[in-house]
Parts: sequence; structure tokens; C-alpha cells
Amino acid sequence: MPAEIPEKFLDLFTKKAFANLATVMPSGHPQVTPVWCDLEDGCVLVNTARGRQKDRNMKRDPHVALAIADPENPYRYLEVRGQAEEVSEGGIADDHIDRMAKKYMGVDKYPYRQPGEKRVLYRVRPEHTSTMG
Amino acid sequence: MPAEIPEKFLDLFTKKAFANLATVMPSGHPQVTPVWCDLEDGCVLVNTARGRQKDRNMKRDPHVALAIADPENPYRYLEVRGQAEEVSEGGIADDHIDRMAKKYMGVDKYPYRQPGEKRVLYRVRPEHTSTMG
Repeated sequence: MPAEIPEKFLDLFTKKAFANLATVMPSGHPQVTPVWCDLEDGCVLVNTARGRQKDRNMKRDPHVALAIADPENPYRYLEVRGQAEEVSEGGIADDHIDRMAKKYMGVDKYPYRQPGEKRVLYRVRPEHTSTMG
Repeated sequence: MPAEIPEKFLDLFTKKAFANLATVMPSGHPQVTPVWCDLEDGCVLVNTARGRQKDRNMKRDPHVALAIADPENPYRYLEVRGQAEEVSEGGIADDHIDRMAKKYMGVDKYPYRQPGEKRVLYRVRPEHTSTMG
């Protein structure tokens, strides 16, 4: 069942707000790390590199949760739960990480690219949302 | 296997740094919300109220993950994975939430207590840590 991100929390995606992305390890235990995020057509976009723990986790089990706090007020936050679907490896994912570098760092090109690194873009369609503040 | 939080990240617990606490839902899917946190004897302490989703999740499946970012630098963070063990309901948990209110809000008493709310204190003994920055 798709859910909608409440309109009054959409501003978080215009700010430099990090998403704390929780995925599930092969053991069934949770893992969580902060990531850049973006909104497109009501879905949360996250970008990672092929082979990282969260990439491997999302490929195996697409269920994720994201907590996104307002950088100006940590008591105001959005939680999104849903399934992560791979959108692209390279190409669109490369363009997207450069857009995120612009948003979060003010630079035109993502500066931390490692040799051989393949960027992967995932789209999370919300199935549940909750908010605070 | 217990793990230690790297010494150079212990300062996070002296700052008003939030922990993004990931737990596992009955469905096996992850859930994540920001919480206040504290360090004691190498373990991360988190305080919730009896009956909340994360309380129910941790009682059923103690495996959790926490991402704790430096409020002064979001690119510097600590991830802790481990098992949450209940320390106290009321009593020590009540004293702890007041200490957290002091740390995060500068007040002597936790101001958001609801009628009938029972505070619960959990201790997470690290089994895995990773850091960035």
C-alpha cells in the first residue's frame, strides 16, 4: 500500500537533511547509516556504491526505513518505511550523485569517487510514514 | 563478541548528538527513529516509553543499530550494532530521562512526560562499530 509523505514535511528535501537509512543484514539484524537523499515523484532517492553493505542489503531484502530530521530542528523529523527498488547503475546514478554533491556541498561534481566505483541509485516508494514536530 | 567504541568518537556522547536507532518490526522490516543517547561502561543507553514501537521491537528482537552523527559535522559519524537489554522500567529509567533532558535541553526534569507513561531504559552492548570522518 503506497503512502504519501505529508506535504508539510516536503521542505526537508530542499534542505541539506540527511536520511538515516536502515537496511537489514543477512542475519536479519538492522544496519543504519546517514546518506544524502532526494525526492522524486513522491519517492525518496538514495545513492550508494555497488558492493557496499547497504547496497548488498537492499538487493537481498528491499525493505528499508529512513529517518530524516530537519537540520534546523532535530525534534522535527519524518520517518519513511518502504521498499527500495534499483533505478540505475551508472548513467542516471552518476548524474544523480553529482546533483546531490551540488545540493549538499555546492560543487558541480561528486568529489569522492573512487577508481572503479559504480554508483547505484535506489528509489524508495513510501508504504508508511510518521512525523514528529 | 563485544566491540569497543573507538576512543576518538567518545566525544559524540558529550555533545547533543542524536542516535538514529534502527530496530526490527514483527514483519522483519526495519524501523528507525532519532533518540537521545548516552554512554555508560562502553554501552549506549537509550530511553523510551513502555509500549512504543521501538520498545515493543526491542523486547521481541533485541538486535539494533545506531547511527550517531557529530552535530557539528554530519560527515563524521559512528555506527554501532548490538543487542539491547532492558536495564530498568521506572526508577533508574526515570532518573536517566531527567539526565538526558539536562544534557539535551538544559532543564532539570523531562518536560514531555505523559500521564501514565512508563519510561524504560535499554543498554546496547556494541558487537560491531564502524566510523566515518
